Amino acid sequence: MRVKNAVGRWVESEISGKTFKPFSGAKKHVYSSKVTTLVNALRRCGLRDGMTVSFHHQLRDGDYVINMALEAVRELGVKNICMAQTAMFNVHEPVIDFIKEGVVNRVEGSINGVVGDYVSKHPLDFPVVLRSHGGRWAAVKTGELHPDIAVIAASAADERGNATGVIGESAFGPISYSQVDAMYADHVIVVTDNVVDYPCEYQEIQERYVDYVAVVDQIGDPKKIMSGTTKITENPLKLKIAHACVDLMDAAGFIKNDMVFQSGAGGISLAAMKYLGERLEEKNVVARCATGGLTKLIIDIYESGRVKHLYYSQVFDDYSVKYIQNNLEMPADIGHYADPTSKGRTIDGLDTVVLGATEVDIGFNVNVNTHSDGRLLHGIGGHQDTAAGANLCIITCPVFRKSNPIVREQVTTVTTPGDVVDAIVTNEGIAVNPKREDIIEKVKGKIDLIPIEDLKDIAYEETGGPAELDLGEEIIGVTKWFDGTLLDVIFRVKE
Amino acid sequence: MRVKNAVGRWVESEISGKTFKPFSGAKKHVYSSKVTTLVNALRRCGLRDGMTVSFHHQLRDGDYVINMALEAVRELGVKNICMAQTAMFNVHEPVIDFIKEGVVNRVEGSINGVVGDYVSKHPLDFPVVLRSHGGRWAAVKTGELHPDIAVIAASAADERGNATGVIGESAFGPISYSQVDAMYADHVIVVTDNVVDYPCEYQEIQERYVDYVAVVDQIGDPKKIMSGTTKITENPLKLKIAHACVDLMDAAGFIKNDMVFQSGAGGISLAAMKYLGERLEEKNVVARCATGGLTKLIIDIYESGRVKHLYYSQVFDDYSVKYIQNNLEMPADIGHYADPTSKGRTIDGLDTVVLGATEVDIGFNVNVNTHSDGRLLHGIGGHQDTAAGANLCIITCPVFRKSNPIVREQVTTVTTPGDVVDAIVTNEGIAVNPKREDIIEKVKGKIDLIPIEDLKDIAYEETGGPAELDLGEEIIGVTKWFDGTLLDVIFRVKE
Repeated sequence: MRVKNAVGRWVESEISGKTFKPFSGAKKHVYSSKVTTLVNALRRCGLRDGMTVSFHHQLRDGDYVINMALEAVRELGVKNICMAQTAMFNVHEPVIDFIKEGVVNRVEGSINGVVGDYVSKHPLDFPVVLRSHGGRWAAVKTGELHPDIAVIAASAADERGNATGVIGESAFGPISYSQVDAMYADHVIVVTDNVVDYPCEYQEIQERYVDYVAVVDQIGDPKKIMSGTTKITENPLKLKIAHACVDLMDAAGFIKNDMVFQSGAGGISLAAMKYLGERLEEKNVVARCATGGLTKLIIDIYESGRVKHLYYSQVFDDYSVKYIQNNLEMPADIGHYADPTSKGRTIDGLDTVVLGATEVDIGFNVNVNTHSDGRLLHGIGGHQDTAAGANLCIITCPVFRKSNPIVREQVTTVTTPGDVVDAIVTNEGIAVNPKREDIIEKVKGKIDLIPIEDLKDIAYEETGGPAELDLGEEIIGVTKWFDGTLLDVIFRVKE
Repeated sequence: MRVKNAVGRWVESEISGKTFKPFSGAKKHVYSSKVTTLVNALRRCGLRDGMTVSFHHQLRDGDYVINMALEAVRELGVKNICMAQTAMFNVHEPVIDFIKEGVVNRVEGSINGVVGDYVSKHPLDFPVVLRSHGGRWAAVKTGELHPDIAVIAASAADERGNATGVIGESAFGPISYSQVDAMYADHVIVVTDNVVDYPCEYQEIQERYVDYVAVVDQIGDPKKIMSGTTKITENPLKLKIAHACVDLMDAAGFIKNDMVFQSGAGGISLAAMKYLGERLEEKNVVARCATGGLTKLIIDIYESGRVKHLYYSQVFDDYSVKYIQNNLEMPADIGHYADPTSKGRTIDGLDTVVLGATEVDIGFNVNVNTHSDGRLLHGIGGHQDTAAGANLCIITCPVFRKSNPIVREQVTTVTTPGDVVDAIVTNEGIAVNPKREDIIEKVKGKIDLIPIEDLKDIAYEETGGPAELDLGEEIIGVTKWFDGTLLDVIFRVKE
């Protein structure tokens, strides 16, 4: 059919079997400032009962944004929110009140500390869903977890919504968790205490995805944002374990030119990185990349020329934040780093990773979520992702802590299955997963190995074995493998 | 139902009304090199009759990749391909043979030059669909145009598929058109002549989207890749027009601190940018951003401190390519720049843009696609996008060329509707769109304006008016507004 369109042209509504809509008019695309308050932003995004609201955790224990956002939800009289944060810390203790009041009734995301303790004893309407960093990215991408509203904290943003964590008083490093939320949430709010001239000079989040820029007095406490300890442990037991990790990597042939290693923060991992740096120097080899989290220690190794690229997804200390402001070497967002549904990730082909555990068992299964009393006190982080990505995944732990056996018959909760865990390095020796015959063969004559069952026996002898657990029947949480399948359930802890 | 999963845990298949799939096993994620040949890559992507294959045009008239890819399609015996390139040049003359042979039977994308001339006379099975840069991005994003296979030329890539146009012998500037193809195509092939060590240090395209890295001898002819003339016109008529553009901007109050202007290549636009730089200097003002294409001229203005940010999407000359290798100031991909379905674009709120035309009419409608004889010889580029994004959209053209009136009653094809065109600057005077009363008011007493009808009258007097067009009935192409609606149809030209 011939139709006259808005510019006065006779056009066809169907050509060669395809239908066309006639042009109906053009107008100028202008822009207006997206700056408003947090309450207004949530209202204009159509916040209502039952919605899912997502957050990132990059302000860590210094974060004010989650609490402020939930206060705004309360102010708007909205209930039954599902929180979809990437992690939660003790600073989020007020969440307990929001749960009691019915403002929050579900949590899909990692929980650390007091809120986890509370939830362990007071089940929510739906169990807490714990996913790895990569697993969460995939869940948002595939729609398994759909944020209605994404709330993204930024240490600087312009009035159009281009936003960053690299600069500003509350700088925390590149925003790396929220890109998927920005892309898939129906509505996106950037929360900042620092509106900068357009265009914001770093833009991990771009205006194309942002509906509102909510301005607050302060997004967090800079001192606590960077609280991740970067002081290397002085505990001789832990230093011994860290040293053993590097010996194992070396004996297994991983410390060579172009190795790719994952670095992290936290006691033993940090010490292992220090020893790894020294070993690179001694052997006069140059690693290809350090992935994961950035610390002064890793930057020092980089500056000394012992690693070619910093390919990092998080920044853990003040020194590193200032460093990247002048040398923004290849940040990788979490999708690039660990999305299991992608066609390639920075952690695929990792040579080595050193990870912690609250418990490990004789099947090499690892628990990082619950304590042995059943309480859900920790998130998953990138544990699963890097374990499956690394050729040599090393778990470090003491054989027991106080009266509690850490190496045991069965972990309380499975976080990372033994299928992808290669070695357990403890103060009482190193156990290598029998499936890794290649590694066992390589280290023969260089490293003394001990069967994991023997480590368990030592633990049980010294402690009398695990305390009996008297848990409730209700499921308060679940751990998922990064492909979305159900790894384990977490039961209620009696008060 | 309780089920025992692959890690030996009893889990529920349903919890609180939601179903869960039990964990079925974990394995290491490894990676293998994606490097192969172009033919193998296409075969492994499952190329078959009728598929849509997309390309970018950033190698311009030096591009070897489109021709090589179609040769590979021919070698595989596959027919009826829909080409979805962002633009096509004279170097793509072999496409005519691929059309004749039935390898290609549809084109959704801009065409410049000889192929357009051919198609004008020999209709394809389906009319050529012409979209602006932003309109194409949106069409791929919304699924209106779905590439089965995206073929992305890169001047460097690592074996995992992280790819760039910034470095290498055939560097052409950041890849900025293909992100949407990488994200939405079913299969993605990076084509490069330069496999670099992992990780490629620039990564406009990341491995997460890439299936194969096809290695070829040469992706293009470096001399022709950077053929966009950056020599400023010496034609006094054109210089006069360029100067008048800057006078108009100035009189209308746009040349002030924090102005945002679009820069491009090509004769008059380039001269206008030179004069604009001088005017910034004279008035001692500092612009906020230069968007669009990068040239030495713009970099000089930037280096002189007269513009704060280079916010560019393309790189037009050798000097600029080398410059960005050391100063990668804020490249904006085409989605960031111009996606009309996004929540904010770099071109929204542009103060000024200077664009060309093959024809303009008394309704201020602009044609950049066809010549006055009806032949489809040019693509749309960002014409529509920037016209609608800019507060002051200036079109430059002579009133007539040889015996052909350029300002006329009706353009042969509508590319950009007069609703978003604000001024026509010609060698015979400046016409401002009567809808822009604000601009007319501002320039009063500073700039002499002339009614567009008078410009048309001059053109008709000097040339005797437009030649009569004797076109066929068949529609060989359509122009779309960037919202996907049908602006105009292009008819067959008789041989």
